[in-house]
Amino acid sequence: MSRQDPPIEPLGAETVYDGKQFSVRVGRFRHADGEEVEREFVHRVPAAVIVAYDDEHVWLVRQPREVILQYTLELPAGKLDVEGETPLQTAQRELAEETGCAAERWEEVRSYYPSSGYTDELVHVFAATGLHPTDAEPDPGERIEVVHWPLADLDAALAATNDAKTVIGLQWLRAIL
Amino acid sequence: MSRQDPPIEPLGAETVYDGKQFSVRVGRFRHADGEEVEREFVHRVPAAVIVAYDDEHVWLVRQPREVILQYTLELPAGKLDVEGETPLQTAQRELAEETGCAAERWEEVRSYYPSSGYTDELVHVFAATGLHPTDAEPDPGERIEVVHWPLADLDAALAATNDAKTVIGLQWLRAIL
Repeated sequence: MSRQDPPIEPLGAETVYDGKQFSVRVGRFRHADGEEVEREFVHRVPAAVIVAYDDEHVWLVRQPREVILQYTLELPAGKLDVEGETPLQTAQRELAEETGCAAERWEEVRSYYPSSGYTDELVHVFAATGLHPTDAEPDPGERIEVVHWPLADLDAALAATNDAKTVIGLQWLRAIL
Repeated sequence: MSRQDPPIEPLGAETVYDGKQFSVRVGRFRHADGEEVEREFVHRVPAAVIVAYDDEHVWLVRQPREVILQYTLELPAGKLDVEGETPLQTAQRELAEETGCAAERWEEVRSYYPSSGYTDELVHVFAATGLHPTDAEPDPGERIEVVHWPLADLDAALAATNDAKTVIGLQWLRAIL
């Protein structure tokens, strides 16, 4: 993160599991003092998250997360799994698909690594304002429900979610409002 | 998350990769309407994160994350990998190991899932105050540097980190101070 940090050199990685949603790799890395270390990690494409809001509401989705046996309250999001698409284009596509909305103004809020100890997944967070319906029919999926959450009650949304991207995006929104 | 959510029933999972840091499982799940779905996911033990602060500073660590080829600025944290240890006990042990400090007061801030679409990892966030040195020598590891970051400059810490648990913990701290 800073200029003073010594470089970390990748020495190659072997794919030890090749799945549908991610792969697992074992890589070797060399520190500046010559020490080499091995790391087992999940390789996954980046994702884009959208904090879409107007004067009164922020757009959330409630969806099943089978892996944790829960329905979760989340910001709209999706993977960068379309060839050549930028993070912003993914965010625009996902907002339309999940909520049926387009936005006039887009701002990059930040990016973050969900768990950099064992996965290279990177998440880009965008803010979207100037919302208006698109012609395209939203396709949020049968079990995904769009929730227009009141901005006046962001604390309750933060209490109701346990999803990292949603905590990060809503805490950011609460701080700037 | 809410009482109205229909149940999601686990139907069993097969381990398809068994690693040192995590395993990969393919599980089947049944929705309340009878539909069954298959999910590939990373199984990993939970973690505990500590927001340790006094009147002037918050305790951070700077460490190499080889997987993303960067040094990152993070809150102290560790895995619940000791048999029988509670999340609070893990937090207390990790704070001592990484910073050499103990705390008089502990508060559970929240828990969150870093990426619930493909991993069941759960992270518990604690706040620790009333800090004092312990007799035990800290063992942060050769490449881990403890950083006492000024509370007056939390915005700069939030700009300097890209680590999810650290963003969540510092956003929380900024909101309550």
